[in-house]
Amino acid sequence: MSYLKEECGVFGLYGENTEDVASSAYYGLFALQHRGQESCGIVVNDRGVFSSYKDAGLVNDVFTKPVLDSIGKGQHVVGHCRYGTTGNSDRNNAQPIVVNHHKGRMAIAHNGNIVNAFEIRQELELDGSIFHTTNDSEVIAYTITKERINSKSIEEAVNKAMGRIEGAYSLIIMSPQKMLAARDPYGFRPLCYGQRSDGAYIIASETCALDAVGAEYIRDLDPGEIIVFNKDGATSIRDHCETRPHKICIFEYLYFARPDSTIEGHSVHKAREKAGALLAMEHPVDADVVIGVPDSGLDAAIGYSKQSGIPYGMGFIKNKYIGRTFIAPGQKNREDKVRIKLNVIGSTVKNKRVVLVDDSIVRGTTITRIVKLIRHAGASEVHVMSSAPPFTDPCYYGTDVDSKENLIACQHPLDKIAEVIGADSVGYLNVDHLNMIIGNAPGEGYCSSCFGTEYPTRIPTGNRDRFEKKLGDSDESDDTEDNYELFIRD
Amino acid sequence: MSYLKEECGVFGLYGENTEDVASSAYYGLFALQHRGQESCGIVVNDRGVFSSYKDAGLVNDVFTKPVLDSIGKGQHVVGHCRYGTTGNSDRNNAQPIVVNHHKGRMAIAHNGNIVNAFEIRQELELDGSIFHTTNDSEVIAYTITKERINSKSIEEAVNKAMGRIEGAYSLIIMSPQKMLAARDPYGFRPLCYGQRSDGAYIIASETCALDAVGAEYIRDLDPGEIIVFNKDGATSIRDHCETRPHKICIFEYLYFARPDSTIEGHSVHKAREKAGALLAMEHPVDADVVIGVPDSGLDAAIGYSKQSGIPYGMGFIKNKYIGRTFIAPGQKNREDKVRIKLNVIGSTVKNKRVVLVDDSIVRGTTITRIVKLIRHAGASEVHVMSSAPPFTDPCYYGTDVDSKENLIACQHPLDKIAEVIGADSVGYLNVDHLNMIIGNAPGEGYCSSCFGTEYPTRIPTGNRDRFEKKLGDSDESDDTEDNYELFIRD
Amino acid sequence: MSYLKEECGVFGLYGENTEDVASSAYYGLFALQHRGQESCGIVVNDRGVFSSYKDAGLVNDVFTKPVLDSIGKGQHVVGHCRYGTTGNSDRNNAQPIVVNHHKGRMAIAHNGNIVNAFEIRQELELDGSIFHTTNDSEVIAYTITKERINSKSIEEAVNKAMGRIEGAYSLIIMSPQKMLAARDPYGFRPLCYGQRSDGAYIIASETCALDAVGAEYIRDLDPGEIIVFNKDGATSIRDHCETRPHKICIFEYLYFARPDSTIEGHSVHKAREKAGALLAMEHPVDADVVIGVPDSGLDAAIGYSKQSGIPYGMGFIKNKYIGRTFIAPGQKNREDKVRIKLNVIGSTVKNKRVVLVDDSIVRGTTITRIVKLIRHAGASEVHVMSSAPPFTDPCYYGTDVDSKENLIACQHPLDKIAEVIGADSVGYLNVDHLNMIIGNAPGEGYCSSCFGTEYPTRIPTGNRDRFEKKLGDSDESDDTEDNYELFIRD
Amino acid sequence: MSYLKEECGVFGLYGENTEDVASSAYYGLFALQHRGQESCGIVVNDRGVFSSYKDAGLVNDVFTKPVLDSIGKGQHVVGHCRYGTTGNSDRNNAQPIVVNHHKGRMAIAHNGNIVNAFEIRQELELDGSIFHTTNDSEVIAYTITKERINSKSIEEAVNKAMGRIEGAYSLIIMSPQKMLAARDPYGFRPLCYGQRSDGAYIIASETCALDAVGAEYIRDLDPGEIIVFNKDGATSIRDHCETRPHKICIFEYLYFARPDSTIEGHSVHKAREKAGALLAMEHPVDADVVIGVPDSGLDAAIGYSKQSGIPYGMGFIKNKYIGRTFIAPGQKNREDKVRIKLNVIGSTVKNKRVVLVDDSIVRGTTITRIVKLIRHAGASEVHVMSSAPPFTDPCYYGTDVDSKENLIACQHPLDKIAEVIGADSVGYLNVDHLNMIIGNAPGEGYCSSCFGTEYPTRIPTGNRDRFEKKLGDSDESDDTEDNYELFIRD
Repeated sequence: MSYLKEECGVFGLYGENTEDVASSAYYGLFALQHRGQESCGIVVNDRGVFSSYKDAGLVNDVFTKPVLDSIGKGQHVVGHCRYGTTGNSDRNNAQPIVVNHHKGRMAIAHNGNIVNAFEIRQELELDGSIFHTTNDSEVIAYTITKERINSKSIEEAVNKAMGRIEGAYSLIIMSPQKMLAARDPYGFRPLCYGQRSDGAYIIASETCALDAVGAEYIRDLDPGEIIVFNKDGATSIRDHCETRPHKICIFEYLYFARPDSTIEGHSVHKAREKAGALLAMEHPVDADVVIGVPDSGLDAAIGYSKQSGIPYGMGFIKNKYIGRTFIAPGQKNREDKVRIKLNVIGSTVKNKRVVLVDDSIVRGTTITRIVKLIRHAGASEVHVMSSAPPFTDPCYYGTDVDSKENLIACQHPLDKIAEVIGADSVGYLNVDHLNMIIGNAPGEGYCSSCFGTEYPTRIPTGNRDRFEKKLGDSDESDDTEDNYELFIRD
Repeated sequence: MSYLKEECGVFGLYGENTEDVASSAYYGLFALQHRGQESCGIVVNDRGVFSSYKDAGLVNDVFTKPVLDSIGKGQHVVGHCRYGTTGNSDRNNAQPIVVNHHKGRMAIAHNGNIVNAFEIRQELELDGSIFHTTNDSEVIAYTITKERINSKSIEEAVNKAMGRIEGAYSLIIMSPQKMLAARDPYGFRPLCYGQRSDGAYIIASETCALDAVGAEYIRDLDPGEIIVFNKDGATSIRDHCETRPHKICIFEYLYFARPDSTIEGHSVHKAREKAGALLAMEHPVDADVVIGVPDSGLDAAIGYSKQSGIPYGMGFIKNKYIGRTFIAPGQKNREDKVRIKLNVIGSTVKNKRVVLVDDSIVRGTTITRIVKLIRHAGASEVHVMSSAPPFTDPCYYGTDVDSKENLIACQHPLDKIAEVIGADSVGYLNVDHLNMIIGNAPGEGYCSSCFGTEYPTRIPTGNRDRFEKKLGDSDESDDTEDNYELFIRD
Repeated sequence: MSYLKEECGVFGLYGENTEDVASSAYYGLFALQHRGQESCGIVVNDRGVFSSYKDAGLVNDVFTKPVLDSIGKGQHVVGHCRYGTTGNSDRNNAQPIVVNHHKGRMAIAHNGNIVNAFEIRQELELDGSIFHTTNDSEVIAYTITKERINSKSIEEAVNKAMGRIEGAYSLIIMSPQKMLAARDPYGFRPLCYGQRSDGAYIIASETCALDAVGAEYIRDLDPGEIIVFNKDGATSIRDHCETRPHKICIFEYLYFARPDSTIEGHSVHKAREKAGALLAMEHPVDADVVIGVPDSGLDAAIGYSKQSGIPYGMGFIKNKYIGRTFIAPGQKNREDKVRIKLNVIGSTVKNKRVVLVDDSIVRGTTITRIVKLIRHAGASEVHVMSSAPPFTDPCYYGTDVDSKENLIACQHPLDKIAEVIGADSVGYLNVDHLNMIIGNAPGEGYCSSCFGTEYPTRIPTGNRDRFEKKLGDSDESDDTEDNYELFIRD
Repeated sequence: MSYLKEECGVFGLYGENTEDVASSAYYGLFALQHRGQESCGIVVNDRGVFSSYKDAGLVNDVFTKPVLDSIGKGQHVVGHCRYGTTGNSDRNNAQPIVVNHHKGRMAIAHNGNIVNAFEIRQELELDGSIFHTTNDSEVIAYTITKERINSKSIEEAVNKAMGRIEGAYSLIIMSPQKMLAARDPYGFRPLCYGQRSDGAYIIASETCALDAVGAEYIRDLDPGEIIVFNKDGATSIRDHCETRPHKICIFEYLYFARPDSTIEGHSVHKAREKAGALLAMEHPVDADVVIGVPDSGLDAAIGYSKQSGIPYGMGFIKNKYIGRTFIAPGQKNREDKVRIKLNVIGSTVKNKRVVLVDDSIVRGTTITRIVKLIRHAGASEVHVMSSAPPFTDPCYYGTDVDSKENLIACQHPLDKIAEVIGADSVGYLNVDHLNMIIGNAPGEGYCSSCFGTEYPTRIPTGNRDRFEKKLGDSDESDDTEDNYELFIRD
């Protein structure tokens, strides 16, 4: 399932009275860095001439002063940061993608995952097209370009393309003279826009990026909406959009998004506090202190503390100098690695009954180590609370929830998990209460399919097996279609 | 006063049954990184052969895998991390200092500041000695080496040298076959040791570094104590030590040390919580939420909240990707810089009366910007609480408290400071209550001279003016002593 | 004309009994480095799985030990080095190009320039294709892929594609199980192959790369020939090939190729010596010493000396530490830059009448500075001999002969050039004698169109103007074809 | 003998009407790079304030634009480049050494080797001095500083120090207001000075560095001379200097210096040509072509050719992209390494009787491989000529002639060497003719002790054994002198 790894941040600025747009993209991406640390890129549009730079690495590693200077001035800009693992491959897959085409240049930044990417790609290749990456995003770029041949404008092409691609996508598309923002009809991934005092429009995955560049939030895009930014301001286009149920990813609130962001009118921090309060009602325990696992368990821990009346404490110090360059020389076991990153504040937990709140439990390995650390520091009891329900199913909409064989909730009955992770008790947020963290009706307006509810769309199937086919046989069967090779190591 | 900038972390390991000591130093220094981010160094002792590497930069930037491999195996190790600003000069001043001398090699790591360094240095130079750095630490190394000529052992030399040097110092000294730890007679800077399950002794500035390498804490060194680690274990030597009052730096508890460390039996986190609680009693206000400035204001905020009963809230998100390589392209004002680093969680403060707790107020510029951010996010009142008393005097013991002309408490009457920083009220911890955070008698056992109490030692005077003397005249007056030049740009 | 800049080196190895193919590519490209210093790349084929690395920079800067290790083992390999200028754009344009397609993966390395690239590209884009680079090489990759849809084998597809592309190309193409080498029907660019003692076939632009990996030269490819390397050995295919006159670029002998290479049976060094000898016959002078401009003027200088009987001398020392990282701080004029690189050996030229031999004269600026240096060192006369005829016309076959407005031979009558460059006399090799340096009949078997002879093919025209069209207008005229934008800065 | 490795280049500029002195040092060191590729450094003097930068690496790798900018403007500058091997240790040993002392700052750059360094160092350490490097240069710096305490000027101190240090040294010393150049009484190493049109004085190891900065050569320093450069111009001081025979290192002419340099009035290139001509007279052979091993065998090859009448040919292409970063992946034997660097031009040697001229034969391993390459390319006979006599003894004056057990001339009778290296015959320049290459009387005015003639000074003995003593015992015998430890790995 490594093919699906994809959680990204997108940023766009459409300006008129500014030239220094690259630095705005820098700040915007820096604020969105939590959405993708693998690679990043910025494309500047200077009156139709595009300058870009993309590389593997964090925003402030990739965009040094000379690099920012080299991409120069402009009026509009698109940026992207991308989640991933490691290795050289990152550079090839970095976004935004720049397309140089007869019908006009285009830069495209994408957050999400397309469920019919395989079919579209196969069809295009049979027609002689060449792909340079294994990204869904290139499939989107191709689909738009194909439509553009017979379209009068780029918005018409995007509109048509949205009829062909299916799945989760929040897009920012820059043409020589316009900028487009688009969100898939289910609205799986967030996308909002605002305006700065100099008149520039800012589009971003989260409001924290608007804050970072001093822009005032206007609103989130509606699911299925396209907004065109040009000289005449921001114009909404909705005609391409069938009626679909709204399905914002609930895990954006629980984990992905930054607590200081507001998504569709709901404070992410408040949503997490509410999850913690709900946990306190669902899973009350007699305890002396509530602590959270830094950083994303802290909000819910505060909620649990307030609701239960059990004092909130600072349980850990997280070493803030850990970066991507951190190596772990001579470490034989992963317990040590956790200890390097997190150290328990002994005075908070010693001889105490501890409620330990985390954002979720995936494989269970990390929480097991943390419970051990707390016990070693002298806690008399440890009660683990997960502000997410148990993960039971893969996500097809742009996140990389682990495969079933690794998910602790798929491997053990829930009543055994406390034993497995060494806790006195474990509580998960009830999946039926997820609606309350954003004040919706039960099951309405959000996607929680990774927690076992129905998938909003068909899921990508069938052909996936052929993807996995052993490579290297192709010359022997040049006349068949069987040798579909997509995976490259580079 | 830039000459005094010096707050460092030291780490030593004396082992027998291990070869992989460099990685232990790596973890130890990584845990002590908050004490010094300018430069770092590791010296490994492999049966008397020393291998070292030092450079400007953070521990995990300097000590890459190839660098760690290149310094190789050994049984003992000394490490150091150093505070500072920027520039090439850092590399020259990096520690530990390695001395190759007829009487035996020595590596020395130092945290502190010597008040009679100028006199000793002048005397040594008049005798023909050459200094390679502007560090106090080199003065200490020289003094020990001079004594060593006529000493029977390195501990005798260190003992004699401690009779000559005056001021703040916690030292780790490695000879081919021994390791020494020493703390000045006042005990200004912390130093403790412990033991690992493989028998190795660990010496470190703070207990968090013992935790990082899995060692059990044994005890803090006493002021004026020397401990010799060799094949026979740990042996304490105290005969050099006159009776002096104990003077641990109180600001170690309030700011410098890591909250998960324990210094002289007191949890740093608890000390800060108590400071917060004291503030709540000294400066009660009617408010709706207590928030702390991340990271070092959070502990006291929890204390203030518990004592006052006003709910604790999460007020800010700190961007965790800020590193030393962060540039601020196109930023015209420093307000923007604060906003990039810290973003207010609007839902926490909007329409609320806010108590904002920080560890201290130095110049007042940062807190002014933070108050502004909170008001902009909709807070109705902002009451600022400083868990440190007002800074009024320079520190001569190894920290770089700013000069009087920059200290806000020296520039404005206390009752005007709320106005200056834009707050509704400001509260400082009462200097007379500092003793309570570590349970001492008033004024006993700690140094608070930067808050206006008496200096425990004479202070470095007189000659300082001559240090500042315009350089470049020396060839014209080769026969005078006046041309003392210490400052180099390199 | 900057679009045409393209002089490259290609290298391929098809092996069976070796795994360490990346290092062979490293040595091969290192030997071909003179053909392209901008960027380089290696693609390794490990039983059908391709691993690659490409970057801007010299071979030994890009291919560090960790990088070579990361691309791993394999049985076949393709490498490329590319000429260019500077800047980030280099990385995008680096080769080999890897195509991941339904019909099988392909890596392609190209040296040359296609004259109908614009037409093919336009046609493909109108059909919805997307290009990622501005390289001709991508046009070739696309053309082959399009043909592959309806071909039974990759060699059939390449064969068909060669019927569509026109111009100069030497290609190495690697599929999962085969390797193909192909040369355009005119044979503008060299391409040869050989075999190593372990059975591996080596294909390279020049024989010096065969030497570098210890392979024995077999033969040059014929113009228009395709050779397929697979388990059955090397098989030649010629059926795609119409009868065309052979047109090897004569400037390969005079300048591009390495003197130790042999092209189509002729030693490059000998060809240059002959050019020098011809110059001595065409332009005899009374002189005391013959010196060459290092490095590429030395061979012809030896030839001139032998023929004329005037002693050969060492006139210059070239600083061998000049690399691509050389900066020229504080240099106001370009004279200084030449002086840094080249210093005259005074004892060789002082009070002497000097014959100065260079490979060619392009703009005349460098030779002017060199003449000045020699006069400053005391030469009494300086006679400049160019072993190439005067440049008068652009090259459309993969080199970047400067534009007419910069060519000294287009700006001044030949009899004035001595005066312009400050020489006592100037001699160019007669264009009618070029045949003699490789023993051909006059005008037969080589291309000398940059020296004013007829172009062997049509030249790229018409549409080029539209390429230059001001960018950034495209959104206003989305329905026209006029907004062809190809140039990107990135 | 690895302790003696030391062949360096020094550069100084004393200016008044310039600020951009760092770039002059850059160019000067770049021209002297052949004298030392391990590390380099520049110290700028801006009205008494010294800024410096030193690091391991080549001049154009170490001195990037930002580094040059960071050391800033000034009026005077000293630079140094240093020979060595590899590893981190290089940075510590880089020069110039900057001394910050009561009696005035000093920067010192040194080329040479002191024969009584061990004694001086031991004496200083017993007096309590600390050394930071294992360099002789630090010993010189210490000696000067010690003398300075009781001297009225820096020139007096240098003068006195020169009475204490013995051996080979060419020094440039910069004080806040003066610059001094000094050469040892034997004049082992070259040192000259000149003046630029802006009035700045330039001091350098070789004239090629004067050329590089556009300065006119004035003269070489006399052996034992000190020249003081200050506001009043250049003043020579000679009173410290006893009468000693002049002993310039003859190997400077044969190998070390650049052919375009002039040392003590003799062109290095001409000296090599003469060596070649002498070889032709001493060792005449019947042959078809004379070729030189690039680069340093070419001059003598030209001389051999002219004298013998056998045509000069170009025998090899040296790959000019080889740099210090070159790795040799997968190379099992060193033959391959030579082949990567040097390729034979087959057409020059095929079926020819070849005279192969090299600058010297040390171990014989490289020449053996080269002879093999030429035979493989088809040469019928190979006659090797060495323009240096056979190496038989170590050098104590700043070069690293290999130890006896590695010198081919110490391992085999001369009449067997042809057989050992696979040549048809071998000729060495007769040691009794060395005088002729610089027009001196036999044995007068130069040092040829590495070729078996008498050493001009006593040689360093005795204590060297104690240097080698196993380290790590020192703590057990703290009261003895035996534990002299000098060798560090860092």
